[in-house]
Amino acid sequence: MLGILRDLRGITATPGRGCTRLAYTHFEDQAHDLVWSRLRTISGLVREDDAAGNTFIVPTSALADRKPIVLIGSHLDTVIEGGWLDGALGVAAGMSVLEHRACDGRADPHVGLVIFRDEEGVRFNTGLFGSTVFAGGCLPSDMEAKASDGVRVRDVVPDPDGCCEYQPPVHPAAFLECHIEQGERLVATKSEVGVVSSIVGIRRVEIVGVGMANHAGTTDMRRRVDALVPVAHVVARCPALVDGLDDAVITCGRLQVDPGAPNIVPGRATAIVEFRAQHDATLDTIEGRLRSLVSGVTPAVSGGRCAEIGLGPVVTVAPTLTSDTLNTLLSKILESRGVPFLYLASMAGHDTQRAARRCRASMFFIPSIDGVSHNPDEDSREADIELAGDLMLAWAECCVREYL
Amino acid sequence: MLGILRDLRGITATPGRGCTRLAYTHFEDQAHDLVWSRLRTISGLVREDDAAGNTFIVPTSALADRKPIVLIGSHLDTVIEGGWLDGALGVAAGMSVLEHRACDGRADPHVGLVIFRDEEGVRFNTGLFGSTVFAGGCLPSDMEAKASDGVRVRDVVPDPDGCCEYQPPVHPAAFLECHIEQGERLVATKSEVGVVSSIVGIRRVEIVGVGMANHAGTTDMRRRVDALVPVAHVVARCPALVDGLDDAVITCGRLQVDPGAPNIVPGRATAIVEFRAQHDATLDTIEGRLRSLVSGVTPAVSGGRCAEIGLGPVVTVAPTLTSDTLNTLLSKILESRGVPFLYLASMAGHDTQRAARRCRASMFFIPSIDGVSHNPDEDSREADIELAGDLMLAWAECCVREYL
Repeated sequence: MLGILRDLRGITATPGRGCTRLAYTHFEDQAHDLVWSRLRTISGLVREDDAAGNTFIVPTSALADRKPIVLIGSHLDTVIEGGWLDGALGVAAGMSVLEHRACDGRADPHVGLVIFRDEEGVRFNTGLFGSTVFAGGCLPSDMEAKASDGVRVRDVVPDPDGCCEYQPPVHPAAFLECHIEQGERLVATKSEVGVVSSIVGIRRVEIVGVGMANHAGTTDMRRRVDALVPVAHVVARCPALVDGLDDAVITCGRLQVDPGAPNIVPGRATAIVEFRAQHDATLDTIEGRLRSLVSGVTPAVSGGRCAEIGLGPVVTVAPTLTSDTLNTLLSKILESRGVPFLYLASMAGHDTQRAARRCRASMFFIPSIDGVSHNPDEDSREADIELAGDLMLAWAECCVREYL
Repeated sequence: MLGILRDLRGITATPGRGCTRLAYTHFEDQAHDLVWSRLRTISGLVREDDAAGNTFIVPTSALADRKPIVLIGSHLDTVIEGGWLDGALGVAAGMSVLEHRACDGRADPHVGLVIFRDEEGVRFNTGLFGSTVFAGGCLPSDMEAKASDGVRVRDVVPDPDGCCEYQPPVHPAAFLECHIEQGERLVATKSEVGVVSSIVGIRRVEIVGVGMANHAGTTDMRRRVDALVPVAHVVARCPALVDGLDDAVITCGRLQVDPGAPNIVPGRATAIVEFRAQHDATLDTIEGRLRSLVSGVTPAVSGGRCAEIGLGPVVTVAPTLTSDTLNTLLSKILESRGVPFLYLASMAGHDTQRAARRCRASMFFIPSIDGVSHNPDEDSREADIELAGDLMLAWAECCVREYL
């Protein structure tokens, strides 16, 4: 586990500042290739990349005869200056299972690995993209999502049409993932493992202010139409929108001002507001409060004519329940080994929630030190990392016995 | 006037979206070269670029014997997606004077042109840079100002040491500039010309929030240290800081969020707040209100631990009075021609305010259509543009008679 994780850490656009492997860049490609270069020495394994560029490393029988397999996987893209374990841990655990299950250098025909593309959604404001395609294809409009440099999803995926009319290369009987917690609940409860009972729902919406770019000196306060001021009002009030809602979070992580010069009244301001909760009803409440806030901003802003602001389309990821039977298998393993564990809801989105549309699927967490993630300081104890590999092996073996 | 202005309009990094000629880029260089290529046909004119890259196009006697001249000038850099007249009008008017004063293809030894660099200050958050050097050199620390791509002023100027220990290549008896108004006061008072009696003081300060980048889902509202929320509070309240202060304006035109991903709690947020007024006392009042606002934000922000925010160093441009005697000469010309004019204070900073440190200096405005500037739609009536050239010629001729 630790060896391959350290090698993957070396693949980054920002040496010395955590890991930056944005989706569909040379750096993500390199990470996929590194994993395959290590596993190709096991005879009977083949690599197949699908229409979205998801990499499947599976026994030949799973491809040729479409024999069912237990599929283990996660992603290798990262956020900008992110950590070394987010995604990579689950891929390394899957590799470890394939290596341990090989016998005399020949692959076990019952287990396979998948590496999904673009889980983070940083580059195209997408997220869970590769696993969404795997779950049943994406919409043609998803192909048009644009990065800040104008590149669209359709320009980078191997087969845009194939992403929409999708045929999976393998037939999974179950999907398993492990991941770092990215929070502090395991440490707070002295648990070594978190069995994920549900995965958070996420809504993401653009707040757009359209004013008029003009000279910051000669355009007096009554005559200007400033696009940023009302958007800043909304961003400043976002935290209060989840007051009284347990476990809900709201974040504005991106705010773009155009033209962006100190001496020009902003002509356009765009904020992305994202909120998460375990239940659709909670998400509805937050969305309602946000809509009220946005529509009430114009009268609230003083000191000049206020720019029009509005909400763009809401991107929704529904809350997802994981497989009870998979969770029961895992909890029995944990009990038999005396590992203290916790059932918990994931506040982060994960590929498992998309895979759950195609087959039974679940995942577990190991603790993150100080709960830090999406940050170069993201880390976990070495013993916990090794435990993740051992547990994934035991869980996969149970699944093979149970389902194949 | 119109021919050269249209040719200059063609030099831009963003064809079809106004003019973008940031300081010390290929586009600004091209504009300086174009002006010289048109004037070099007049015999007896020479081009001399100083340590800051300011271009002087002057009679040989002004350089060799340091004979005093009347110097006319402005700038050719622009904001991002700015207009075609801001700066260029004053350069074109100076060219027109040099052309009209030439006799039988030989230059008038009494008038010269200067094109200042980096008036707008967009790239390095400087502003009036070239004319500041001309006024008496800049500080060594000004050389270290950084653009967003890491390039420093010292990397782009022809002679960094020479910018600090400055020797002007010419000896001006007076400096004259004309410019678009970038406001609506002339139209509102049915004036065709504005004689500028004073130029606004400007202060510019960075508001910096330092939080901790972390996962936007797993970092609960109480545990997160969001850098953007408190900065957005300040930006939203900025317009109210000039309430009750006549003629003062305040603007946040740039706000940068890092790392800038929708699913990461902002670790750093940086806003540039700029305010302007005709009197230092008013600027002091606004700065005091801004400091109170910033120091009061931490207790005011609800919904989580608040990032530290603070003010960076304040960049100051003092209010400037223009030359009474130059203004009197100009107003006599306007009266004798029956041109309706207005004395007014400029809310925009201009190279004239720096040149005023070296010699008597003043400027006039022509009307801007709808007051629009720093915008691709910036425009003035053709008759007003032609009038600017005629007036500058008459004003320069008066100055030659009066001072040389």
